[in-house]
Amino acid sequence: MSKQKNDTREVIDIDLAESKIEIKQLTKDLEFKGGRGLTSKCISKETDPCVHPLSEDNNFYIAPGLLSGTPCPNSGRCSMGAKSPLTGGIKETNTGGTLATYLARMGIALIKIKGKSKKENVIYIEDISKEEGNNNIKVSLHIVENVKGKQTYEAAKTLQDKFGSNACIVIIGPAGEKGYLASCLCITDIDGKPTRQAGRGGLGAVLGSKGIKAVVVKKPSKTKIDYIDKDNFMKNAKEFTDILKKSEVTSKSLPDYGTNVCMGAMNNSGALPTRNFSSGKFEGVDKIDGEALRNTILNRGANPTHPCMPGCIIKCSNTYNDEKGKELTGGFEYECIWALGANCGIDDLDYIAYMNRLCDELGIDCIEMGVTIAVIMESGYIDFGDKEGAVKLLEEIKKDSPLGRIVASGCVIAGAAFGVKRIPHVRGQGMPAYDPRGAKGIGTTYATSPMGADHTAGYTIADEIFKIGKDVSPLESKGKAALSKEFQQYTAFLDSIGLCLFITLATLGDDRGLKPAVEMLNSKYGINLNEEDICKIGNEMLQLEIEFNEKCGMSKYTNDVPEFMRKEKLDTHDSVYDVDEKELVEF
Amino acid sequence: MSKQKNDTREVIDIDLAESKIEIKQLTKDLEFKGGRGLTSKCISKETDPCVHPLSEDNNFYIAPGLLSGTPCPNSGRCSMGAKSPLTGGIKETNTGGTLATYLARMGIALIKIKGKSKKENVIYIEDISKEEGNNNIKVSLHIVENVKGKQTYEAAKTLQDKFGSNACIVIIGPAGEKGYLASCLCITDIDGKPTRQAGRGGLGAVLGSKGIKAVVVKKPSKTKIDYIDKDNFMKNAKEFTDILKKSEVTSKSLPDYGTNVCMGAMNNSGALPTRNFSSGKFEGVDKIDGEALRNTILNRGANPTHPCMPGCIIKCSNTYNDEKGKELTGGFEYECIWALGANCGIDDLDYIAYMNRLCDELGIDCIEMGVTIAVIMESGYIDFGDKEGAVKLLEEIKKDSPLGRIVASGCVIAGAAFGVKRIPHVRGQGMPAYDPRGAKGIGTTYATSPMGADHTAGYTIADEIFKIGKDVSPLESKGKAALSKEFQQYTAFLDSIGLCLFITLATLGDDRGLKPAVEMLNSKYGINLNEEDICKIGNEMLQLEIEFNEKCGMSKYTNDVPEFMRKEKLDTHDSVYDVDEKELVEF
Repeated sequence: MSKQKNDTREVIDIDLAESKIEIKQLTKDLEFKGGRGLTSKCISKETDPCVHPLSEDNNFYIAPGLLSGTPCPNSGRCSMGAKSPLTGGIKETNTGGTLATYLARMGIALIKIKGKSKKENVIYIEDISKEEGNNNIKVSLHIVENVKGKQTYEAAKTLQDKFGSNACIVIIGPAGEKGYLASCLCITDIDGKPTRQAGRGGLGAVLGSKGIKAVVVKKPSKTKIDYIDKDNFMKNAKEFTDILKKSEVTSKSLPDYGTNVCMGAMNNSGALPTRNFSSGKFEGVDKIDGEALRNTILNRGANPTHPCMPGCIIKCSNTYNDEKGKELTGGFEYECIWALGANCGIDDLDYIAYMNRLCDELGIDCIEMGVTIAVIMESGYIDFGDKEGAVKLLEEIKKDSPLGRIVASGCVIAGAAFGVKRIPHVRGQGMPAYDPRGAKGIGTTYATSPMGADHTAGYTIADEIFKIGKDVSPLESKGKAALSKEFQQYTAFLDSIGLCLFITLATLGDDRGLKPAVEMLNSKYGINLNEEDICKIGNEMLQLEIEFNEKCGMSKYTNDVPEFMRKEKLDTHDSVYDVDEKELVEF
Repeated sequence: MSKQKNDTREVIDIDLAESKIEIKQLTKDLEFKGGRGLTSKCISKETDPCVHPLSEDNNFYIAPGLLSGTPCPNSGRCSMGAKSPLTGGIKETNTGGTLATYLARMGIALIKIKGKSKKENVIYIEDISKEEGNNNIKVSLHIVENVKGKQTYEAAKTLQDKFGSNACIVIIGPAGEKGYLASCLCITDIDGKPTRQAGRGGLGAVLGSKGIKAVVVKKPSKTKIDYIDKDNFMKNAKEFTDILKKSEVTSKSLPDYGTNVCMGAMNNSGALPTRNFSSGKFEGVDKIDGEALRNTILNRGANPTHPCMPGCIIKCSNTYNDEKGKELTGGFEYECIWALGANCGIDDLDYIAYMNRLCDELGIDCIEMGVTIAVIMESGYIDFGDKEGAVKLLEEIKKDSPLGRIVASGCVIAGAAFGVKRIPHVRGQGMPAYDPRGAKGIGTTYATSPMGADHTAGYTIADEIFKIGKDVSPLESKGKAALSKEFQQYTAFLDSIGLCLFITLATLGDDRGLKPAVEMLNSKYGINLNEEDICKIGNEMLQLEIEFNEKCGMSKYTNDVPEFMRKEKLDTHDSVYDVDEKELVEF
């Protein structure tokens, strides 16, 4: 097939300072790359590692995956990338919602946003092709009133009123406008609500620093996606669907209980970080676990089985109503419930859901907020379990008070301001919902990922806790650098083709693995990948990212967990994180 | 002389956790090292680079210089070292006062403080020898009431009442007790007032994290210092005195106008950082320069010519009275007057002096505070020139309010919290009083010093502005990496022998240079140094420090000034900082 290889996707190149917009073909070196593969490649190539993350010279990139927009199930993840305000290094954060699907169907591989806007605050992208096959994309800059300073739900509604109710909105909240380090990007879901977050690393502040409140993408009326061998593509899409349907996890546990199925599992394993990583078990777990969440959702007439993006057949997301049956939040997932729940000693789902909504409204990462509030609780400023106090801390962000500024700056700054030494982070990014001392593979991912502490960068939990691929002991430290590396390479590949991480909970346990996905890439683009290329491609991406970080000032010795996790035993296992430092440094 | 070489100095080793104190000989590898040479060597050897700076495992070191306590003029500087809470890397900060002299005369080369105290908050060191020649040092731990949370002047007084009015006190203020990143150590001067600061890098918070409020050193009644060849030592001490007396700068300008003689010079050169480094000239300079300061001091009956340490013959320090003639502050120097003055657009000496006193009372670095307040002013939270607003920001630290916590955390955290991109710092430490774009040698010192932005690490201003040694153009970028390196090596050597940096303003302009100092070392210790060894010794120290920083996570690419200084022209010279990045990286 290699003779036919063909990548017809285009790039939208926006120079805000000059109000100059160009739509052009992908350059040769960017062909057959997608998602994180494109964002990281472009950052590495075009962004000066010395820029201040909020500088107008910190380019902002959006890239759907290579399979996004196609009938491949669960391929609708969209990557966003820039130098991170939170970590000071390279960042890719990806999201569901309708974004990747719309862009890919318009034939767009990449949006590059550079410079700072003088007055326009919204970028609008629409397909104005009159005939099939002709790619006529229009990109325009707009001054939209009544969105500045507004929370995301209201501002998204204003934009949908203006640009159409089924447009996809990428929006930042007041946090991103203020440049707060933990700001995220909110993306509308299939219901048009901004419940999907590209949460980590503060990229909302990068878009904000460009003077842009939102990127609006009109739903395309037809698809521009072409295939070299459509029959083979469809055959493999079916095969891939079959893999996801055959897995108990992706066809039953996740649809029924959502990602919060992890809550009970992690608590049982004794690696559920509780009260700022001071215990591995939470006594209030029954009130906030998968069962409790599902029951509450069903009792209140909400939806426990909701897709985060078009074409998703796992549907591990949800909607959540308040006691009166009014929708309180959506996309209410394990990481958030853990961060603002167990990690803060809070066992009240309604409070946690309210805080999740507040984070979404402010446009701030709920994981970083949970980690930060727990660090502040550790200082004694408020107590663990003080749910009213936790809500008040988030409300301070709304007020732009000095306290709110500290909270919105994430766990490292909050730790410094409150004199706390136990700060669970790597490269300035707060750790997610798995204790490194109770699952040393995921700890190694936190320690070594170029993205900072990030479970999605190499989700070894699949093997360590869920035993999907291999049965790996979570407490064993030997071999964990290799395991994490393999997962990180695999994941980098997934992040470049638009596949949701959760498909690995099926593919790792199925002999067919990612073969159908590789075949779909080959049949769509006429390339010749095989399964061995997965780790190679992933590794190349990681190397580029690590090199960029070094130029940002991070030495290889930043590859480690914080001191306290090597010295203070986790109660449930009497274990510290003890993966050999040399293995991490040489990662 | 090498056959006779002899280093009889001792080490006080204090393990606070075990209340265990040992006094022992210097180990072989530490012999003939002093000051920063000892602190950096010990950190490199004994401190895990991964420790949190406020961890009990971050050892705290105190080391007088190799010539401290001797009749060598201006040799009374004392080094303190630890991993820095502010930079996250190695730190040596040095100070005048009576500390180095007392310790050296007791025969003490080094104090090592490790662990965390359970209840005792004061370390007391006294010489209890009954007879000449016998070194009988007693070190004891005490619980002293009424010092916790107290400001430094009051707490120092309480300690002098208890331990004797002529004891030297090393004390931290409320800022250090709270663990604030910009906390300093205050050391009593020859009048017993805590006006001398080991200011930079937050080491006050390190002592605070050990539960120690103060180290008290009783004035020794006799000296334990011995010499291999005292006659030769005295001859060279006289020679060295002659160099200092012959220099116009060290015998006239500095005694008359103090360090603030720099204010006019830097303004005239167009490299006086004004309003957060947005201009190189300050229109209010006449109200705060050397002349204005001297006149105010004399009119109010204070002292414009005060030594910062015993044996100082330059006497560039001062005391400063308020309008009613009551002493308001002491050690009121250029860097502080610049930081809280020109850099904040404030031209009122009384306000600046009040803020200097407030910083000393709180135990917080006045340079970092001035840089931080200017960054907050840049955000528009208060205006440049708002002197009442600036005072209020410092007073917030006293209250432990969230705003005070931000201010006390230094310029990088304040910049993040207030969304400011123009943050003049390197490695997290705010830049001192010389704009890198108007004096590119000092900019190179900021960029490359392992200590973070620090003028004292390699004071190229001596050549660039004062033309003492060579006449070097401040705006030329070529050769500045080499110039800065030479100065940094020279300075590292000075920091290890206890000599005040200002002696270079004489030695660089005198053919005899540092030869008498080298001869004094040889005659005291029986070693065989020559002038070529100066840079070799300095370079070895720098290499150890750079290696430690790399292990703390800093890659060689951290060697640079912030982005804005490479892009935004300094108004006075239409110049950016443009020293080749490669030269910095390869430093």
